Amino acid sequence: MTNKESPASAPEVRRGRRRKARDSGAAKQALAQLPWDQPRYLDPPVEPVGLEGAQRIHEAAMQILEEIGIDFLHEKARDVLAVAGCKITDSSPTVRMDRDFVMEQVNKAPDHVSLTPRNQDRRLVFGEDLAAFGLVASPPNVSDLDNGRRVGNRKDYQNFLRLAQSFDCIHFTGGYPVEPIDIHPSIRHLDCLFDLLTMTDKLVHAYSLGVERVEDAMEMVRIAGGFSHSEFEQSPKMFTNINSSSPLKHDWPMLDGAMRLARRNQLVIITPFTLSGAMAPVTLAGAIAQQTAECLAAVALLQLIRPGAPVAYGSFTSNVDMKSGAPAFGTPEYVRATQMSGQMARFYNLPWRASNANAANCVDAQATWESTASLWACSSAHANIIYHAAGWMEGGLCASFEKFVIDCELLQQFAYYQKPIGVSDEDLAVDAIRDVGPSGHFLGADHTQSRFKDAYYSPFLSDWRNFESWEQSGSIETPMRANRIYKEVLAEYVEPPMESAIREELTGFVERRKKEGGAPTDF
Amino acid sequence: MTNKESPASAPEVRRGRRRKARDSGAAKQALAQLPWDQPRYLDPPVEPVGLEGAQRIHEAAMQILEEIGIDFLHEKARDVLAVAGCKITDSSPTVRMDRDFVMEQVNKAPDHVSLTPRNQDRRLVFGEDLAAFGLVASPPNVSDLDNGRRVGNRKDYQNFLRLAQSFDCIHFTGGYPVEPIDIHPSIRHLDCLFDLLTMTDKLVHAYSLGVERVEDAMEMVRIAGGFSHSEFEQSPKMFTNINSSSPLKHDWPMLDGAMRLARRNQLVIITPFTLSGAMAPVTLAGAIAQQTAECLAAVALLQLIRPGAPVAYGSFTSNVDMKSGAPAFGTPEYVRATQMSGQMARFYNLPWRASNANAANCVDAQATWESTASLWACSSAHANIIYHAAGWMEGGLCASFEKFVIDCELLQQFAYYQKPIGVSDEDLAVDAIRDVGPSGHFLGADHTQSRFKDAYYSPFLSDWRNFESWEQSGSIETPMRANRIYKEVLAEYVEPPMESAIREELTGFVERRKKEGGAPTDF
Repeated sequence: MTNKESPASAPEVRRGRRRKARDSGAAKQALAQLPWDQPRYLDPPVEPVGLEGAQRIHEAAMQILEEIGIDFLHEKARDVLAVAGCKITDSSPTVRMDRDFVMEQVNKAPDHVSLTPRNQDRRLVFGEDLAAFGLVASPPNVSDLDNGRRVGNRKDYQNFLRLAQSFDCIHFTGGYPVEPIDIHPSIRHLDCLFDLLTMTDKLVHAYSLGVERVEDAMEMVRIAGGFSHSEFEQSPKMFTNINSSSPLKHDWPMLDGAMRLARRNQLVIITPFTLSGAMAPVTLAGAIAQQTAECLAAVALLQLIRPGAPVAYGSFTSNVDMKSGAPAFGTPEYVRATQMSGQMARFYNLPWRASNANAANCVDAQATWESTASLWACSSAHANIIYHAAGWMEGGLCASFEKFVIDCELLQQFAYYQKPIGVSDEDLAVDAIRDVGPSGHFLGADHTQSRFKDAYYSPFLSDWRNFESWEQSGSIETPMRANRIYKEVLAEYVEPPMESAIREELTGFVERRKKEGGAPTDF
Repeated sequence: MTNKESPASAPEVRRGRRRKARDSGAAKQALAQLPWDQPRYLDPPVEPVGLEGAQRIHEAAMQILEEIGIDFLHEKARDVLAVAGCKITDSSPTVRMDRDFVMEQVNKAPDHVSLTPRNQDRRLVFGEDLAAFGLVASPPNVSDLDNGRRVGNRKDYQNFLRLAQSFDCIHFTGGYPVEPIDIHPSIRHLDCLFDLLTMTDKLVHAYSLGVERVEDAMEMVRIAGGFSHSEFEQSPKMFTNINSSSPLKHDWPMLDGAMRLARRNQLVIITPFTLSGAMAPVTLAGAIAQQTAECLAAVALLQLIRPGAPVAYGSFTSNVDMKSGAPAFGTPEYVRATQMSGQMARFYNLPWRASNANAANCVDAQATWESTASLWACSSAHANIIYHAAGWMEGGLCASFEKFVIDCELLQQFAYYQKPIGVSDEDLAVDAIRDVGPSGHFLGADHTQSRFKDAYYSPFLSDWRNFESWEQSGSIETPMRANRIYKEVLAEYVEPPMESAIREELTGFVERRKKEGGAPTDF
């Protein structure tokens, strides 16, 4: 991705044209960041069931679509599918599809999607061997060490946006990082999108929660990017994520939003919520077969709406706690389900969305091993779109500021891990080994000195001092170090530039829509 | 590996014969454990530099051995190598070896090693696609939440042995889990080995720290297993680990111990301490080339001592902190260096030792992400012998009881992760999906009920309750849960059975050797 270094200069701001990412408020002082970039996976993907296993899961998914069917709770969606020849009984929402039809539609979908937010230097590609990391999305609660856990509000919402803008490892936002319940639901989307589009310049998402929210979001993204209507539709500028209501059901708001975005060439990620043992079979293969069927049913619909519409295969399959039925994340099953999902996404040549998930209640060892396992699952299996990459806690019920910083440290490490390893003569360093000899030390060697600065990844959150130094400086554990860092980064935040005419147009739109009442809140 | 379930019965104790692992004090009450077993890796290994890269590292290692040479600070070792035709200048300890000679010796080494401790049900295979996890080894300090960090003592040493015996995921001990400084160094090895051999029945290690320590250890292991001298030498019953004094040097005590064990057909792991940027080149390829040269030099010596002597390729390469020069672990560089080490071990068909390492000062997020990365490195690259698998902190300066429990939870998850994924018709569950339909739930389905108990891994340390329940029960974070668990397991510890005649013989040996003064402490 674009990451052009240039000498410091006044921000170059042109309507709908390139703006330098380096001028967009990335936190330069508080921490050493890797440059804005999309990691490209280096190792072959882990594929736990092999090609034959993927083929069997595909066959099962086709059997589900042909024999059992998926409920489409949207009349227009059923009409479109019926016209295309799908089997629908008048009194039932269930739609059955032949495998030939499904695969014909799936094959129309692009294998990668390029998305352009209002700052074109933040353009992303979802697909290929590329990764993109998204901010935590949609928790009702928020927490930090200073004020504990509380319900979401606009101030915390905005602070997460500032952090997302400041950390170069965050590529996109994917829904509200925390639900700001102090804004009335009818107008919440207007204020939230205004904040998103002014406080960040990265790719944004729209909730598929009713006609007005979806249409307002598309219009605001169009205005913020300075795009004409036709420019907006020329290539994807934003995305939505829809969850099927597993088992085997797509609800009205999700389908309606998906169809609206697809019509206008915007990306739709389809993520079944197939929790194994609850909303899907207790066996991973069964859960992934169901996930695949639910996803492809919507892909087929959207390809009928607009052939070639950008879509992504979303996975969220995990298991439940055997004792309580509570959802679990970052488990061995989650890792395997995620890797199997990657196999299926590649089987259909679709970009693939996964998540950095955990079910911990505090930012401790459990939160870290579950998140790290989730990220290794994504990395080992080449996830393209990594939702909730930073800040997610409690199976999605809370966004944590400290966890956000910890996750960003992990994201940087995962990105750095994809750096190719050199084996040139210079890398093999036989001459340096000869020069240093059996009694020497490499710290002072020329071979070391000329490479030392950039030889290794430099974390911003690790404390590698010895115990005595660490203790003397107050025994500060990782969450408290993260707490200090997020506040320092907030203090240094700089709002990304936006042309004043665009800002006025955006403000005017929000004001007009508020006067009109925003969105109905009774669906 | 052996894991035979049998009805509860009186311990079957025979001299030198099978004793049931289930009777050996494994903690059955305090936590749900996976059965004693060696995980077998499921996915192909990650090989970051490919076969061509491994070939280039090999060439560099050969060049180091041929042109630069390795210092052998042991006259007898040099004599053996000189007789075999290696180039040695009279006044210098440096030995140069032709590549044909080195490879001829390396090819004599077995590609896997079966080791039989005193309980034959605890037999281990080091090699193939198998993993074995070892207890933390050699820190001078110990810590727990109750008493903080302190220098090592025998009580803590013994408690770690009890835990190692009780947790089925710990396959072997690899040196003292903490150095008990309240025992005089001259007799410490006698008391420590007595504790090891009576309080555990798992594979043990001997430090290569002088003639007496090594010979006493072999004799005590022989007595404890009820082996005759020839039985002891018939197959490996124990092992040592030697570290080269990088760069390019093998010290006297390490070489002496290694040769003594090799002569008697016991396993020697050769682990260069090639910290990149300090004792080895700043480039990973250079550090691994040097590590390989140092390791193979000792392998060649030991194959001359006893053709076919069991040896293992040990890796410990990590990087230093660019700011302070302090060692770092669990970094992206550590992961890649570990994976590259695995490539080299396979290149030479040798069993491979790696480690679960971190550089954190407390059991927090950093400790967890560094350890988890280290374990993923081991798992992704098929490490056979995983040293310090549970309890290591501070780059090896401290053993933590809480970290031990957390690591055991991670080890179980890594073991479970290697379970093959089924894709049979029953696994694909299309009939169950049909039965449940779009309005149902899988929790009550027959397909779920008949599999629910064993469908998923069940952690003993995770808390998956919702936030409110967790908070009401005291907001117990992971380290405190681990603290409770380790004390519960200690309370339930049962010493593994040992025939009284063997115990008397062992006690008599220790008493006699103590009277003789133990080992000199002035080397």
